[in-house]
Amino acid sequence: MEILRVVDELVCTRRVPGMQLCALRVLESAQGALSVATDPVGAPAGKWVFVTAGSAARLAMKDATTITDLTICGIIDRWEEEAGNIGTMQNS
Amino acid sequence: MEILRVVDELVCTRRVPGMQLCALRVLESAQGALSVATDPVGAPAGKWVFVTAGSAARLAMKDATTITDLTICGIIDRWEEEAGNIGTMQNS
Amino acid sequence: MEILRVVDELVCTRRVPGMQLCALRVLESAQGALSVATDPVGAPAGKWVFVTAGSAARLAMKDATTITDLTICGIIDRWEEEAGNIGTMQNS
Amino acid sequence: MEILRVVDELVCTRRVPGMQLCALRVLESAQGALSVATDPVGAPAGKWVFVTAGSAARLAMKDATTITDLTICGIIDRWEEEAGNIGTMQNS
Amino acid sequence: MEILRVVDELVCTRRVPGMQLCALRVLESAQGALSVATDPVGAPAGKWVFVTAGSAARLAMKDATTITDLTICGIIDRWEEEAGNIGTMQNS
Repeated sequence: MEILRVVDELVCTRRVPGMQLCALRVLESAQGALSVATDPVGAPAGKWVFVTAGSAARLAMKDATTITDLTICGIIDRWEEEAGNIGTMQNS
Repeated sequence: MEILRVVDELVCTRRVPGMQLCALRVLESAQGALSVATDPVGAPAGKWVFVTAGSAARLAMKDATTITDLTICGIIDRWEEEAGNIGTMQNS
Repeated sequence: MEILRVVDELVCTRRVPGMQLCALRVLESAQGALSVATDPVGAPAGKWVFVTAGSAARLAMKDATTITDLTICGIIDRWEEEAGNIGTMQNS
Repeated sequence: MEILRVVDELVCTRRVPGMQLCALRVLESAQGALSVATDPVGAPAGKWVFVTAGSAARLAMKDATTITDLTICGIIDRWEEEAGNIGTMQNS
Repeated sequence: MEILRVVDELVCTRRVPGMQLCALRVLESAQGALSVATDPVGAPAGKWVFVTAGSAARLAMKDATTITDLTICGIIDRWEEEAGNIGTMQNS
């Protein structure tokens, strides 16, 4: 699973059937690459999350017939990002 | 799902069976990489879209037996691209 | 689907069962990366083709039990390549 | 399968159902990229492991309905890492 | 399918069940990236091979329930590698 940060909601009026009811989020990697994921956990902007890709992305949705190849699986509790380098998590 | 821009239609006379009736689009990433996707939504050139890959690409087609590994799932309503960096979407 | 150019046939005497009858092609990306694909369309060297990956690569073969993860799906009619940048296709 | 090093446990309170009981590990590639994997073997921090991705990641779990796209498959016995280059394993 | 060179055997005592009987090889890409593959063909160190990824990796094994996402499919008969550039194969 990849570690990405939530940037924003995706606004998209014209979609394929089978995506109508999904919340979509724009995510950004530590390297700045953007992607779009379905969001069953309600991840707010600014949070670091981890996502699952491929067929597992569908299984992670309540309705496994949803059209997706990337789904947010969890919100990471603590994630420190240092300059150009994502640090490891620390429990406190 | 990746975020790509529609460049053009793909002209391809000699194809494998199972692709004959699909509209094909050439897409470009923010980094300039080109790829080909099946298009069930009718995305015009110049528009930013998001695409689904893998087995989800077949499920996104009306006919799920279509041979494809990349399908356009939706046209993004607003997408600002700044120099060397794709900006976030803004609702107005 | 990715856009690649046919370089040559692949000569490979010792293979896993289930690949014996497939034509194999060495393909090159615009960035110079090489890969191997099964070829059900008979693409000659020098031609630009598009390929499908993953489980779709098997479905694109006449015999869907063929062992492959990359199959040539079609030969692109016109494809202009400029220095360091693949141009868009033009119909004439 | 990719070769990665275990960095830490992942702390994540809010997850999709179907991940509740899995141990999660943060892994780092030789290039410094981070990812998250499910861990059925109990790999301690600092160890080099190899991971399987895609649908095989689910099959590698005791419960194959687990939501994951990356699973630790084994701990590598000996793995020497030299400056900027991972060396080959040596049996002694 | 990707083209990789066999570096060595992988020594790994602690593995997930379902991998016990597989020969594992460490492979290196032309760019120096390392990965691990299951080997049903008996590829010796130093040889260039091509590998299949994803679900096809399991189908390429004699026992398709084997846990793997990368399997060696064949040993390439001739493969010339020039400085910084893998050359094409030549039949003689």
